[in-house]
Amino acid sequence: MPIDAAKALAAEPRAVPLSWDHKDVLLYHLGVGAGVPATDPAELRYVLEDRLHVLPSFATVAGGGMIAAGWTDTPGIEVDLAAVLHGGQSLTLHRPIPVRAEGVTQTSRIAALHDKGKAAVVVLRTDVADADGPLWSGESRMFVRGEGGFGGERGASERPAPPDREPDVTVERPVREDQALLYRLSGDWNPLHADPEFAARAGFERPILHGLCTYGMALKAVVDTLLDGDPTRVRSYTTRFSGVVLPGETLRVRMWRGGPGEGRIRVAVGVAGRNGSGVLDDTVVEHA
Amino acid sequence: MPIDAAKALAAEPRAVPLSWDHKDVLLYHLGVGAGVPATDPAELRYVLEDRLHVLPSFATVAGGGMIAAGWTDTPGIEVDLAAVLHGGQSLTLHRPIPVRAEGVTQTSRIAALHDKGKAAVVVLRTDVADADGPLWSGESRMFVRGEGGFGGERGASERPAPPDREPDVTVERPVREDQALLYRLSGDWNPLHADPEFAARAGFERPILHGLCTYGMALKAVVDTLLDGDPTRVRSYTTRFSGVVLPGETLRVRMWRGGPGEGRIRVAVGVAGRNGSGVLDDTVVEHA
Repeated sequence: MPIDAAKALAAEPRAVPLSWDHKDVLLYHLGVGAGVPATDPAELRYVLEDRLHVLPSFATVAGGGMIAAGWTDTPGIEVDLAAVLHGGQSLTLHRPIPVRAEGVTQTSRIAALHDKGKAAVVVLRTDVADADGPLWSGESRMFVRGEGGFGGERGASERPAPPDREPDVTVERPVREDQALLYRLSGDWNPLHADPEFAARAGFERPILHGLCTYGMALKAVVDTLLDGDPTRVRSYTTRFSGVVLPGETLRVRMWRGGPGEGRIRVAVGVAGRNGSGVLDDTVVEHA
Repeated sequence: MPIDAAKALAAEPRAVPLSWDHKDVLLYHLGVGAGVPATDPAELRYVLEDRLHVLPSFATVAGGGMIAAGWTDTPGIEVDLAAVLHGGQSLTLHRPIPVRAEGVTQTSRIAALHDKGKAAVVVLRTDVADADGPLWSGESRMFVRGEGGFGGERGASERPAPPDREPDVTVERPVREDQALLYRLSGDWNPLHADPEFAARAGFERPILHGLCTYGMALKAVVDTLLDGDPTRVRSYTTRFSGVVLPGETLRVRMWRGGPGEGRIRVAVGVAGRNGSGVLDDTVVEHA
């Protein structure tokens, strides 16, 4: 009985201490393609420790991120990691993320379990706070192939239709050949993203980019293009991972502004030369 | 009296503990341009933790490297860091560098002080050993502008003439625009390599690449081209830093094999489009 929904949902929240410093932030920023001050001074905020603004998607790796959450050890959850796909991610930012932190606590629990028949969806909720109060909350939707049929609720399928008009802005962001090799140093060591033989066994022609790397690259594109390069304006960021990216490909990030005062940008990410979406869908950035 | 040679040479050696792990090695390898297994399987030895061979030039950053040596705190040495240039570096490898290490001790001392008239040359000697014995020894030649005239020996000028023939092999290695931003995460945070304003004040049109990054890139080129991609064959590696490289330029690495059984490769590094040398000169790799 690999998934026991009642047991998993009743499990005690798991609290772990997180810490990070400017080096972790810089490594993350370079991992999601932060650039070169010499040719673009606007990038200094991402790469120079004394002017650093933290891209909010850093929350997904800070101090070990979801890996530190250790959700696969939750009582009632017994799954094969090779069957797990990251299905979706949302973040809510309560305050700007500090460049350095000690004594931050991440509390995580299984918030919901959906039974999709052939697969299970595990909704992992994390709340991160320091002595001054909440920093951010995250929700990760983990898709576990072959683990449906445990008799749980199917769960809603929220699929907001994409805007029925041309994007307000479209930018392209090349993914470097070694992007995944660098991104993984932020803590996701899954060999799927580095080892050609492992990737081949998993059915891919070569190692694929981390979904959360695309997630960070897309947020950076939104911040740089529509939010005046100010990461602190991001209030929340939600996406669904709908397809893979290979290093060397180029992301096409399409963005639609919300109405006046709405504070909401719709985003769709695809690969240039394939089609306009299919990598990150149902994606929304809420902002100040 | 900023340099008191007798005092500096009589100072107690400084011993500091070093430790590192695979993440530090991977970060260093990416910092000196290690590549992409998907397109070149030979690169796996530099970027995959379970097949990792450590490039010997990692010794210059391991556990904080020369920065941990803290030579500028030596009694008798009182210099303005802004006046210090890294003039030369040599390494002697006693054993292959392990991927992970704890409880390694780095002992450093001022081995010599040369008085060049307008400048001083501080020769910093470091010896690194673990419980099994010596790992490597290094010698760094630090050029301190404006600090000559303290009455010391002038020191020999060893300038082996470059081979009087065409190189056996020439390879080009592009330096990425963000190479210095990545390299500096291995521990050399000098803003000269990242901050355009700081670089401008120092007289450069933009941030320059770390000399030790070029040093690592050149060794990798030698290992990959003439040593069968086997870093453990390197016995020693000596260079003189003779010019700067700007990120975005392309290194031209010229190599001359020694005679049969000599185990010695001569190397000269320049920038493509400028000339063939002028970046790393008087450079020798001794090998098994």
